[in-house]
Amino acid sequence: MIVYGRNVAKEVLSNNLKINKVLLQEGYSDQELIDELNKRNVNIKYLNKNMMNKLEEGNHQGIILDIEDYEYYDEAEMFNNMPKNPFIVILDHLEDPHNFGAIIRTCEAAGVDYIIIPKDRSVRVNKTVMKVSAGALNNVKIVMTTNLNRFINKIKENGVWVVGTALSDSVYYDKVDYNMPVALIIGNEGKGISQLVKKNCDFVVKIPMIGKINSLNASVAAGIMIYEVVRQRGTNE
Amino acid sequence: MIVYGRNVAKEVLSNNLKINKVLLQEGYSDQELIDELNKRNVNIKYLNKNMMNKLEEGNHQGIILDIEDYEYYDEAEMFNNMPKNPFIVILDHLEDPHNFGAIIRTCEAAGVDYIIIPKDRSVRVNKTVMKVSAGALNNVKIVMTTNLNRFINKIKENGVWVVGTALSDSVYYDKVDYNMPVALIIGNEGKGISQLVKKNCDFVVKIPMIGKINSLNASVAAGIMIYEVVRQRGTNE
Repeated sequence: MIVYGRNVAKEVLSNNLKINKVLLQEGYSDQELIDELNKRNVNIKYLNKNMMNKLEEGNHQGIILDIEDYEYYDEAEMFNNMPKNPFIVILDHLEDPHNFGAIIRTCEAAGVDYIIIPKDRSVRVNKTVMKVSAGALNNVKIVMTTNLNRFINKIKENGVWVVGTALSDSVYYDKVDYNMPVALIIGNEGKGISQLVKKNCDFVVKIPMIGKINSLNASVAAGIMIYEVVRQRGTNE
Repeated sequence: MIVYGRNVAKEVLSNNLKINKVLLQEGYSDQELIDELNKRNVNIKYLNKNMMNKLEEGNHQGIILDIEDYEYYDEAEMFNNMPKNPFIVILDHLEDPHNFGAIIRTCEAAGVDYIIIPKDRSVRVNKTVMKVSAGALNNVKIVMTTNLNRFINKIKENGVWVVGTALSDSVYYDKVDYNMPVALIIGNEGKGISQLVKKNCDFVVKIPMIGKINSLNASVAAGIMIYEVVRQRGTNE
């Protein structure tokens, strides 16, 4: 994956991502960043401004990095290493990288064991996600599954209770007992969770809405749900 | 306030903001938007492309709007109309308009009575906030106060309990009884709540952090705190 710019470079370093190569513009003067790269024995090549501009028309700010694609956690490995009381968060076709990044931060802070995303029609770990997740990326396990419904059936067979979120026809989110192996499903920003996924849930819950507009940002809704599990499990005693 | 672009125009309409004048580029073809503007008897003027570009170098997409500045709710009015069991959210020098917009949505959904921001060194209602708050702006009361600490002292004199958030030296957020007149204080994204404000709090609480990075997005942290109040007050029974 090719990324560029000073801030992204700093995120790559703070997330400890593997760097294949760095291209710096001749005369690049951020010694602190160069020192950091040298510390990791990164292969650095200097190019003149014209060459740099040819490679990246965007605002590269004198630094272009070729980094390893984000490595998702292996699904089979996940089933082999399932903790006793797992806490899983499933993102049902989320689209916005800002939401994905904020949810990764929340999952890291809340001690979520695995984050699951579907392979198709879903946001993936890209440079915006990397930036927004603010260093948390390196401390969570994200699994990319080819078939979300098959995955849900499989964790149910493994004794995990599956809790989806919806706006109506459901109980309030704090009325479910989360002191059990649990997977929360967070729906798409516009469409919510898909019909088939919803059918597959053991519970469908909702967050109370007292206003007139009745919509929460997806990462805020996820935060409220995730911390209700933390609260009930009493990890905060 | 001058704003431009199709999406912003739609937000202005959905938030029901007062429009002084609209400038459209000759040949502007979004009939749906024009119908909406006509429905409200908005003063529309057509300009050629050159004139439009002179007024706004940014990507105006053929539409420039002159709208009334957002009207903050009057502070004296607020004290005169205080409900019996008020729920107030104070933003202590928040900077990011995305966070502000998401918090406005959460406050609207949670039935928060007043949102308070300080006049200086704080994000205000701008077009990003308008866009992110997704229609909720028109259904909340935002007060801009000149002196945050004086404001906090005044609500305390009015019997409101003030609860701040911090990372350490505090009790967990769910161990406080929110069945009382309450004001939650959400701190700045980087610095948290300021020292003087912290001293002024009746309680300082924290959200448990189980991971290694231990940081939540400000709007997610606000959502968790705000919905704990909703949960305890049992508005969702």
